[in-house]
Amino acid sequence: MFERTKETKVLRDPIHGYIHIRYRVIWNCLNSREFQRLHRIHQLGGDFQVYHAAEHSRFGHSLGVYEVCRRMVTEVDSIAGALSESEKIAVMAAALLHDLGHGPYSHFFESIQDISHEERTMRIIADPASEVHQALTAEDEKLPQEVIRILKHEHQRPILNQMISSQLDADRMDYLLRDAYETGTSYGTFDLERVLRTLRICDDMLCVKQSGMHSIEDYIMARYHMYWQVYLHPDAKSYEMLLATFFKRYMEINEPIEVFEPLRHPLSNEEFFLMDECRMMYGFQCALNSKDAILRDFADRILNRRLFAWIENPNEDQIRQLEERLKDRPYYLIEEPEHKGSFLPYSEERSKIWILTNRNELKPLSQCSEIVRALLKMEDVPEKRIFYPKDIAIH
Amino acid sequence: MFERTKETKVLRDPIHGYIHIRYRVIWNCLNSREFQRLHRIHQLGGDFQVYHAAEHSRFGHSLGVYEVCRRMVTEVDSIAGALSESEKIAVMAAALLHDLGHGPYSHFFESIQDISHEERTMRIIADPASEVHQALTAEDEKLPQEVIRILKHEHQRPILNQMISSQLDADRMDYLLRDAYETGTSYGTFDLERVLRTLRICDDMLCVKQSGMHSIEDYIMARYHMYWQVYLHPDAKSYEMLLATFFKRYMEINEPIEVFEPLRHPLSNEEFFLMDECRMMYGFQCALNSKDAILRDFADRILNRRLFAWIENPNEDQIRQLEERLKDRPYYLIEEPEHKGSFLPYSEERSKIWILTNRNELKPLSQCSEIVRALLKMEDVPEKRIFYPKDIAIH
Amino acid sequence: MFERTKETKVLRDPIHGYIHIRYRVIWNCLNSREFQRLHRIHQLGGDFQVYHAAEHSRFGHSLGVYEVCRRMVTEVDSIAGALSESEKIAVMAAALLHDLGHGPYSHFFESIQDISHEERTMRIIADPASEVHQALTAEDEKLPQEVIRILKHEHQRPILNQMISSQLDADRMDYLLRDAYETGTSYGTFDLERVLRTLRICDDMLCVKQSGMHSIEDYIMARYHMYWQVYLHPDAKSYEMLLATFFKRYMEINEPIEVFEPLRHPLSNEEFFLMDECRMMYGFQCALNSKDAILRDFADRILNRRLFAWIENPNEDQIRQLEERLKDRPYYLIEEPEHKGSFLPYSEERSKIWILTNRNELKPLSQCSEIVRALLKMEDVPEKRIFYPKDIAIH
Amino acid sequence: MFERTKETKVLRDPIHGYIHIRYRVIWNCLNSREFQRLHRIHQLGGDFQVYHAAEHSRFGHSLGVYEVCRRMVTEVDSIAGALSESEKIAVMAAALLHDLGHGPYSHFFESIQDISHEERTMRIIADPASEVHQALTAEDEKLPQEVIRILKHEHQRPILNQMISSQLDADRMDYLLRDAYETGTSYGTFDLERVLRTLRICDDMLCVKQSGMHSIEDYIMARYHMYWQVYLHPDAKSYEMLLATFFKRYMEINEPIEVFEPLRHPLSNEEFFLMDECRMMYGFQCALNSKDAILRDFADRILNRRLFAWIENPNEDQIRQLEERLKDRPYYLIEEPEHKGSFLPYSEERSKIWILTNRNELKPLSQCSEIVRALLKMEDVPEKRIFYPKDIAIH
Repeated sequence: MFERTKETKVLRDPIHGYIHIRYRVIWNCLNSREFQRLHRIHQLGGDFQVYHAAEHSRFGHSLGVYEVCRRMVTEVDSIAGALSESEKIAVMAAALLHDLGHGPYSHFFESIQDISHEERTMRIIADPASEVHQALTAEDEKLPQEVIRILKHEHQRPILNQMISSQLDADRMDYLLRDAYETGTSYGTFDLERVLRTLRICDDMLCVKQSGMHSIEDYIMARYHMYWQVYLHPDAKSYEMLLATFFKRYMEINEPIEVFEPLRHPLSNEEFFLMDECRMMYGFQCALNSKDAILRDFADRILNRRLFAWIENPNEDQIRQLEERLKDRPYYLIEEPEHKGSFLPYSEERSKIWILTNRNELKPLSQCSEIVRALLKMEDVPEKRIFYPKDIAIH
Repeated sequence: MFERTKETKVLRDPIHGYIHIRYRVIWNCLNSREFQRLHRIHQLGGDFQVYHAAEHSRFGHSLGVYEVCRRMVTEVDSIAGALSESEKIAVMAAALLHDLGHGPYSHFFESIQDISHEERTMRIIADPASEVHQALTAEDEKLPQEVIRILKHEHQRPILNQMISSQLDADRMDYLLRDAYETGTSYGTFDLERVLRTLRICDDMLCVKQSGMHSIEDYIMARYHMYWQVYLHPDAKSYEMLLATFFKRYMEINEPIEVFEPLRHPLSNEEFFLMDECRMMYGFQCALNSKDAILRDFADRILNRRLFAWIENPNEDQIRQLEERLKDRPYYLIEEPEHKGSFLPYSEERSKIWILTNRNELKPLSQCSEIVRALLKMEDVPEKRIFYPKDIAIH
Repeated sequence: MFERTKETKVLRDPIHGYIHIRYRVIWNCLNSREFQRLHRIHQLGGDFQVYHAAEHSRFGHSLGVYEVCRRMVTEVDSIAGALSESEKIAVMAAALLHDLGHGPYSHFFESIQDISHEERTMRIIADPASEVHQALTAEDEKLPQEVIRILKHEHQRPILNQMISSQLDADRMDYLLRDAYETGTSYGTFDLERVLRTLRICDDMLCVKQSGMHSIEDYIMARYHMYWQVYLHPDAKSYEMLLATFFKRYMEINEPIEVFEPLRHPLSNEEFFLMDECRMMYGFQCALNSKDAILRDFADRILNRRLFAWIENPNEDQIRQLEERLKDRPYYLIEEPEHKGSFLPYSEERSKIWILTNRNELKPLSQCSEIVRALLKMEDVPEKRIFYPKDIAIH
Repeated sequence: MFERTKETKVLRDPIHGYIHIRYRVIWNCLNSREFQRLHRIHQLGGDFQVYHAAEHSRFGHSLGVYEVCRRMVTEVDSIAGALSESEKIAVMAAALLHDLGHGPYSHFFESIQDISHEERTMRIIADPASEVHQALTAEDEKLPQEVIRILKHEHQRPILNQMISSQLDADRMDYLLRDAYETGTSYGTFDLERVLRTLRICDDMLCVKQSGMHSIEDYIMARYHMYWQVYLHPDAKSYEMLLATFFKRYMEINEPIEVFEPLRHPLSNEEFFLMDECRMMYGFQCALNSKDAILRDFADRILNRRLFAWIENPNEDQIRQLEERLKDRPYYLIEEPEHKGSFLPYSEERSKIWILTNRNELKPLSQCSEIVRALLKMEDVPEKRIFYPKDIAIH
């Protein structure tokens, strides 16, 4: 039904060996300008300021999520047998396209615009002017809406939603392995082969055979370590604080920098398309010549890595000192917003990982794993971090 | 003072890249017949019956422990500066020789002899007839006793004892990485480089800088996973049960198999030296011709991998069925001795891992790590396993 | 037609991730006592005396060859489509069983018996008393002969013969990767994924698409380096010389060592089955008490790694010195037989690797690859090596 | 003498584990804005259009070359003992800074400016306005000139020049390993540890002990394969042809695009500093609105990966067809300049790799290695490639 590519297209990939593409619609999505733009959005925001090799973009990650998803729907018999070809296409397309809506420096960008990257992704897919929309429609009129339904977590088949976004989804499976590889750390590694081998579908829910439970424990710990060691690293956050502060100042004064002007109002899809990290960097170059000393300073800090210093859980006295010494420099004492829940390795509050026991019962992971049960008892004690210029010495 | 080898001797090693040897005494220990014998003792007992590639011996592991220890005393400035050359030699020799006293199938062997492998190791080192003793003495009369003191955990410098045996010792650091590599699993990996980089010595205690705490958490999880996935794998245990039962029977009947006869009494060092796994295998070949049907059957099972089936935590009914069906075959229903504590990833009951905080205080790991604190709350619920022939079907 | 296992059996493997078994006949061959015996035959003979970690046996390698072959017949569309199910089973069984006939220390053993390991393999498969024969026959009466025909290179479908033994066969693809992994060297690595992806079948010949030619060049170099760095390493050869000389002496004197006595005449399959490396090692232990001083000395050297020294391409004067100094010790000056051709990375004399060009023509590799053409011009200058005891000093 | 950093600074790196920095001057160079700019220059120009994961920049590579060089001058005893501290600093700084002068898309950029990247690097280091110049001078007035002398290959100590640029230099050692890692191919791997272990200094020349010769052969093959498989990949070249053609057109018409205007004349160091790949990308965005249709088309092709098709070694007829069909589109038939010599794995014309034989003689590699001798006989038959739009079909 769905048109195949002439032969299987393969793309060399350090994480999965090869990415395999067999459907023309997937190939066309990959070649759309909206997808190609992902080469210009770092996967890890400011993390390459800490892990210098982590310069990879959302392009490779998106391909990786697609590949994990493709393996789920073709190599896991239990899933392959339960889905129609058109459901498989829809979920693979959703995997490939799920990050289209990321702006520069990913999560930072959401803080200066009013819509989430998920919402933007859906707008792009729904937009008849976008090349991805056209690629999907060329195959099947209803495909854009099917993909959006999956991304919204509203598809009538829960299994599709879960494959893209849940506590055990293709997205995380790829990014943990990829980010570990690119940073050069070993924390994010877990046994993907075994996880895939033990995946099952049961009552239209994604679950894991009991014999795969230890790989799941390992995966959860991998995620936990990546959060602490990479995603929430204070120097990476320091860089993102510089970005945030630059734009806070920019919005408060009236001096226009041409490439940043669109940011003063909600962006159209076309404006969003152009707003990649290259454009941002050029904007910071322009800001080096701004009349505003604060913009000039932050642009220099961003371009040339003059990061702020930081303290974790500062005491009263330290805060007092910093406030005293920076009382005339309002943009230079920055408190990071709390990362609620990020410091917990696993929670079953909103959704669960399901284990299919040897007696064919579905149980939440925490009922099967001694160690996960222990982890659930961890308290969420987010560290509070405060950032300030390195030339300020406190004791 | 201590004689050097002409140039650094290097041995290619898959885990550490190279093993580096610079002292003649180490080189001579390595070339002793007692050390060479370790090539004939599997590192993982019966685990190659499950993980077919895990055929490595205690030889490579012993070199690996030596190498980790060598790096500690030369590359970790804080340790290097605190030890005399003679203490460094002693601890490196202890690392190299710590497993000399392992009998065939390692831990199994201890169950049929009255002394532990640690005790045997010390007897060999103390024995003037052994080549290792002679190698040590040739360098320094007191060296054998120094090494023994470290192995006994009685050296006056606690740091030396801890490097060889503690919750964070060179032994574990090597075996986790090596066993993961050889089995082809990823569970045992942790960041050895980072652990070494953050080791410190403080009050003559081994400790870890706070910035290395996450690698320690990772190391603890690695150990936990290796226990579950490899060391206590039921099929590996099944093989060891066969060995144990063979010898239980052998001791109870009177038919002599020449190579096994010495096992009826405590072994001299010389007898122990000859008792390697090759000799055992030959003995099982001989037992294929035994007049005793039970010996014949177990020898066949051992040589040709006819493992028993097993049930974890059998219920009353299952036990009753098995007892009923096997009531005339007394050796064929085997209950595994409990592995108390093995199922816990970390405990601070007997010893602790110490963290050197950013404020230069020594604290037990559990006071610093949220996740370790959670793990300490895990209950020790050892699985009870029961083994029986595969031709017995129960429901 | 052919019976499947209940579910896919998977075995963890460090080289291929998992070994996948789907047919009952393969599973039963694997569980035969002849196959289990391979755990007691080192893959690399005396190489673990140089690369201490290379202690792996022919068991894992045989599984690996099977797995490469299985991937060829299921994942390479061009091959999968050209073979019947029964041909696939036959070639996979041939891959699994091709090394059954290896004696202790592999190639050495052939020098003291009159039949090659290939010949022994076929005798075992043809022997109605062997468990492999029974496993094959249980599936299909004709299977043993089919397998033998492939191993003899006489199957009517040349493609099957080539998959098992040619310049580009499953055997080499596994052993290069595996031996590199186990020794801890990087020389043997090449891109198996890409080689598999570019394999084709053409005129019932195995060939490689031109786009895979560089992986083939890489594979050829990998093989070349492994020969020089591992397979022909002088210290490994030194060990094998000790074995050969021990038995040369043993055959010349009359003192019986029970476990070695069968070697005085051609072995039956049953005697061969028992003749594993464990039995040999036990025999060397016995020889430590021989009345013959030469046997005692060589047994000690073998057990305890007292290797001979060696010179490559000795000059006249060196040979004269050694002959002079060893004139009363006839067994102690050993010249290695020449390894003709082993030092050449690739030759097209007996068989070729075929390239399928972009214009769909079949050409020998040397006509396509500039670099291989250059390599063919290399002269075969085998090094001549001479071995002697380390206590003999020459200048 | 030279000021140390307070403690060793370490940066996590996927290739070398960690980058170690112990001197303040190196640390300050690293923090200069000229060095930070390297994050905005891809290491592999257009290769990420083929190997999607190869998005790494010259920043990590420069750190890697520094680290290899640091290991040479500290871990290779023979080199460490032969150099003064100030020579070591100079060569490590040269290693770190050797790529400062790379413009966008590296080698492409040289084609549109009149100076080589080497010349630009030296100008930046010599420029009192540059932060690297200031960092070097702060440590030692003469350091900039010392570094430049090394980069010019004119330092009075040849060993320093060779470490940075020769057939066996720190630059290649890092880029082969790094580019292999980032592309996810295995071609570029060789045994760096062994190469470093066998490096020696002899007559102030870098050479390799004979026992390391096989690793050198492997390194040479690695380089050869990387050229064919990665560096000269036609799709990567296709992308660079688009860039070149865009600027060819841009220079011929009069429509200004602000960010590209400086390229019309030789760039000052300050202009060069701003000319990074982010700025270029923004320029292509601007060009999407150009009045010139050709500029618009090429900008779209560059941003959205509409690559040209290509033919290798086209025949007369193919060329004729293309010329006919593209006769009205002068920019759309592109012939690639020849890569003379790139297709040869090794040559001794301009410089040699030296082997220190077991008899302590220095010989060119080709006299020692049979295989390299064969490679020298390869003919340099550069492929001629021609590029054209994919919508042109020829037969």
